[in-house]
Amino acid sequence: MNLLITAGGTAERIDDVRSITNHSTGRLGQVIAEHALLNGNDVTYITTAQAIKPKQHPRLTMVEIESTLDLDHTLAQLLKAETFDAVIHSMAVSDFTPGLSMPDNELISRLSELLATSALSTETEISQALTSAFATVSQERNTAKKISSDAERLILFLEQNPKVIKMVKELQPQTQLVGFKLLVGVSDEDLLRVAKESLQKNQADFVLANDLEKIHGDQHQAILLHRDGDVEKANNKQEIATLILKNIEKRQTK
Amino acid sequence: MNLLITAGGTAERIDDVRSITNHSTGRLGQVIAEHALLNGNDVTYITTAQAIKPKQHPRLTMVEIESTLDLDHTLAQLLKAETFDAVIHSMAVSDFTPGLSMPDNELISRLSELLATSALSTETEISQALTSAFATVSQERNTAKKISSDAERLILFLEQNPKVIKMVKELQPQTQLVGFKLLVGVSDEDLLRVAKESLQKNQADFVLANDLEKIHGDQHQAILLHRDGDVEKANNKQEIATLILKNIEKRQTK
Repeated sequence: MNLLITAGGTAERIDDVRSITNHSTGRLGQVIAEHALLNGNDVTYITTAQAIKPKQHPRLTMVEIESTLDLDHTLAQLLKAETFDAVIHSMAVSDFTPGLSMPDNELISRLSELLATSALSTETEISQALTSAFATVSQERNTAKKISSDAERLILFLEQNPKVIKMVKELQPQTQLVGFKLLVGVSDEDLLRVAKESLQKNQADFVLANDLEKIHGDQHQAILLHRDGDVEKANNKQEIATLILKNIEKRQTK
Repeated sequence: MNLLITAGGTAERIDDVRSITNHSTGRLGQVIAEHALLNGNDVTYITTAQAIKPKQHPRLTMVEIESTLDLDHTLAQLLKAETFDAVIHSMAVSDFTPGLSMPDNELISRLSELLATSALSTETEISQALTSAFATVSQERNTAKKISSDAERLILFLEQNPKVIKMVKELQPQTQLVGFKLLVGVSDEDLLRVAKESLQKNQADFVLANDLEKIHGDQHQAILLHRDGDVEKANNKQEIATLILKNIEKRQTK
């Protein structure tokens, strides 16, 4: 099979010296890729600078990206250029990217200026005026290359990134999409519920759902939810890799 | 000499899966440490997981930290336990640490609620009410272990970290302190001016000032500003290491 695997965590630049990074060692992606290569598959692997990488292999093509926007471009390019039997999207993608940042006193003074032109008698009026003032301020551009370190408190606007995973089925409806959902400290029922929502929202064929509190080195509890409702369990990264690849292959040969 | 060197960049956790990180390869610290070890000095080296490290050496003690708060604790401990002839503080330290974060519509609704109880006729009144409302909201606690990814826009409050470098001379007035100042895209005059301010503010004996736009691999333009006003230049990391160690040694033997 021809597989596309993403792994590692994206980084979003705040300024020239700071980023918001998603912790992700990339180890699960590495295990899946090496397992897939061992079984004779071709692998295109999108990853990040900090992530652990699979060993070089003649059937492995590696692409390095930094931000969610990079991933968006790279994924679109690859999905237009080549047909993949499956896309295994294990990369931890930043939901947000830094927009405007300013010291709180500057923000307060900009907001006050804007609010002063509105009627502010009722809470509804205040809320409307604030909504519009926030919208105006958030569209102003950051000009500083490095945010000053003198402010007591800084307010950072984080804007939603595109949901990259949605593009997969739009560009390749025939591919098998494996999404990943990482939660922290939830019940098994909540994990399953969120995995189901994620599967539907992203038109995924499978969702690998896991809880950060149940990941310790190679010990890695996870459930694989199928589109048809089946649920299978794995206890470590090798089992996760085997489970995902076995299921993709099974559906492939149908 | 007995030297304490810090290198790499701190990371500040936003939640269990995200951090704000300071880009810093740690390469300059590595070069300085290896140079110092080669010249027969003892080195205690505080660094971070992602940073490039000096090669192991019998006279090298390595300590790994993550956040600015970790650095604060580790530095205080070391400075109380041991006398250092010099502290070379090249670590890129986060000025801010993430506090409250919430979707913008939640923030607006909290602020509106608080503002509705105040007089809002003049811009001054609005500004005072906003200041007090922001202060109230910023003290509320984050309870989510992982910030929801559904919000359109998230507002993140960044609170100022302690200025760790100030502790050095307070705890060891006799030590020679080398501070570092990194700016981005400034003139030579501005670089020197900011370096002078930093030297005075932190009671440093030297400040190594550099501009990110003049750092390309080993090419690394920098100025070393002395407390007595002298300025020396370096063009790469080896020259910077030589310059710093030569000057510390000179002042040591006086």
